[in-house]
Amino acid sequence: MRGVLLGIVPDAQIVDISHAVQAFDILDGALAISHAYSNFPDGTIHMVVVDPGVGTARRPIILVGERHLFVAPDNGVLSLIYEREQRISVRHVTAEHYFLQPRSNTFHGRDIFAPVAGYLAKGVSPERFGEEVNDYVRFSFPRPKPVAENTLRGVVLKVDRFGNLITNITPADIPRLFEAAPPSFKITVGNKGQVTCICANYAEGGPGEAFGILGSMGFLEIATNRGSAYQLLGAGKGSEVNVVMEA
Amino acid sequence: MRGVLLGIVPDAQIVDISHAVQAFDILDGALAISHAYSNFPDGTIHMVVVDPGVGTARRPIILVGERHLFVAPDNGVLSLIYEREQRISVRHVTAEHYFLQPRSNTFHGRDIFAPVAGYLAKGVSPERFGEEVNDYVRFSFPRPKPVAENTLRGVVLKVDRFGNLITNITPADIPRLFEAAPPSFKITVGNKGQVTCICANYAEGGPGEAFGILGSMGFLEIATNRGSAYQLLGAGKGSEVNVVMEA
Amino acid sequence: MRGVLLGIVPDAQIVDISHAVQAFDILDGALAISHAYSNFPDGTIHMVVVDPGVGTARRPIILVGERHLFVAPDNGVLSLIYEREQRISVRHVTAEHYFLQPRSNTFHGRDIFAPVAGYLAKGVSPERFGEEVNDYVRFSFPRPKPVAENTLRGVVLKVDRFGNLITNITPADIPRLFEAAPPSFKITVGNKGQVTCICANYAEGGPGEAFGILGSMGFLEIATNRGSAYQLLGAGKGSEVNVVMEA
Repeated sequence: MRGVLLGIVPDAQIVDISHAVQAFDILDGALAISHAYSNFPDGTIHMVVVDPGVGTARRPIILVGERHLFVAPDNGVLSLIYEREQRISVRHVTAEHYFLQPRSNTFHGRDIFAPVAGYLAKGVSPERFGEEVNDYVRFSFPRPKPVAENTLRGVVLKVDRFGNLITNITPADIPRLFEAAPPSFKITVGNKGQVTCICANYAEGGPGEAFGILGSMGFLEIATNRGSAYQLLGAGKGSEVNVVMEA
Repeated sequence: MRGVLLGIVPDAQIVDISHAVQAFDILDGALAISHAYSNFPDGTIHMVVVDPGVGTARRPIILVGERHLFVAPDNGVLSLIYEREQRISVRHVTAEHYFLQPRSNTFHGRDIFAPVAGYLAKGVSPERFGEEVNDYVRFSFPRPKPVAENTLRGVVLKVDRFGNLITNITPADIPRLFEAAPPSFKITVGNKGQVTCICANYAEGGPGEAFGILGSMGFLEIATNRGSAYQLLGAGKGSEVNVVMEA
Repeated sequence: MRGVLLGIVPDAQIVDISHAVQAFDILDGALAISHAYSNFPDGTIHMVVVDPGVGTARRPIILVGERHLFVAPDNGVLSLIYEREQRISVRHVTAEHYFLQPRSNTFHGRDIFAPVAGYLAKGVSPERFGEEVNDYVRFSFPRPKPVAENTLRGVVLKVDRFGNLITNITPADIPRLFEAAPPSFKITVGNKGQVTCICANYAEGGPGEAFGILGSMGFLEIATNRGSAYQLLGAGKGSEVNVVMEA
């Protein structure tokens, strides 16, 4: 993919956002790009190729957002960008003369997405690649739900490389939990995790203790100081997280 | 290595092709570079430092191909490039004044290959680095062989990061297998793998089913949809692959 | 972090030194940067963000060395740079107007260190970021010690990606061990490792044999030819290494 890009734009500034997106995991890719994109300069072109449907009829698309462009398969991997950007336009890429020839059925990152990103970077206008569409694939991001009085149920979205458990719970979902002096609460994580305090930073936690923290992705994370909450609690992606606030 | 390169060519465009070549594995390095190099622009210099013989008498070489240059130890890691390029010239690098001083016996990537690549990128002509040689090391790439009537035997060359098993079998070895409507066939993989269909793309496969597919490296791959054929079949690098065509 | 940097210096030459520093491991980070930095061009700015105390009162610092600049948390991760550079000046970064706003408590790599490195790269003078300090955190690097007549005791500092055991023993600690014809000696490593020869390069070792070698970091390494000494000897980070020289 990098070779193809550089053949079109020799002085491209190419940046790898992550080498750790789980294979075939569209939600994981959606989280990775939504976490990182807004820190990049205006005009950045993001290639988001988590593409288990490569070679099928799923469409390649270009998303023009407020300050960035995205090139991706139309499989929902941009769902979180659709939520966060105010004004968007999505195009179905049909201009095959930009693609690599011959084109494989198994590596469209190289054969379709890299050349499209390259020509966009070179200044070809998004309209040149295909018609605007509105029926792009968009999945609903799992939201936490109230399940009983004073109980909010969320889920672990992913485990980061430090072993922190990143949940789908935000301060907007449960503002009291993140107050300077929150009321008494209990968070259960998976089968055995019990958390009763929120820390302002990772180093505040005692040894071997799990705690909650507002992470850099804007979500509640379950963490432990200089260790892996994943290993400590035996919980991981998909584990249930219940926050019970005292009345 | 990157620091040394940038000291010589501050505006070098440096690209990592792979972080996953197996340690000490010359065949794996040969596959990685042969898969990727032709997509890079004319004039690209490829450093291929899979070098278990670092510090011994094995020679550092420069290969001048049709459109690219390669810098590598003379241990066979360029064998697949020798096969694919029509016109090549290979030089034994002896011009030690280009090397880093002092020179270690354990890290020639930094001390020899990076400065040689750097000065090549800066425009020093390949002839300046040493004499042309013809006795460079070249290993025979393992080819599939007919072992019985209608049976072709190959081998798994590598497992990619998705768990796909990449074999050494190409459409040229057995064209009927890759026809639009192939005759009946059976592929066995390792001790328990059984494959009876070829898919056009990964998503065509049923859940938990292994299938064959023509991969982006030009080889028959054994894959499974959104999963790891490696785990599903318990087969891996070196596993035997037998393709039996019905008469 | 890369996005923030490129927003400030669009044509920055960004290089990843390592993707393998152990989480939370300040000594491992200190080794990684001390091994690599001196090969980079004059004026290079090194970001060294191994930062388990992110969000606490630990200070962000800028180290101006002889030819390079470093941006890091003040937690000792630059200790080996303090040892190796002759003239240094260290500044406590307090100029918050250079930081990203709002600032998280969990990702100062993005919010503090990347913008500081970016403005340094853009030419802002180190004095503009804060006052010089002398009480920066500096840990003592573990040194080998004589423990009996003719016995030097060291430790395994890290295991590299090939499985080589990198000790803290240098030629300066025990010159006779690295002579062309060293006297008889025995090295024990962990509970069961026994080494009785020093090889000039990795390929000199016999199959399944562990040996000593002077590695590219300047330390005694325990290695095995085309294999992992880590697996062969069952020794790893923190394992004791005793070198016994015959009288």
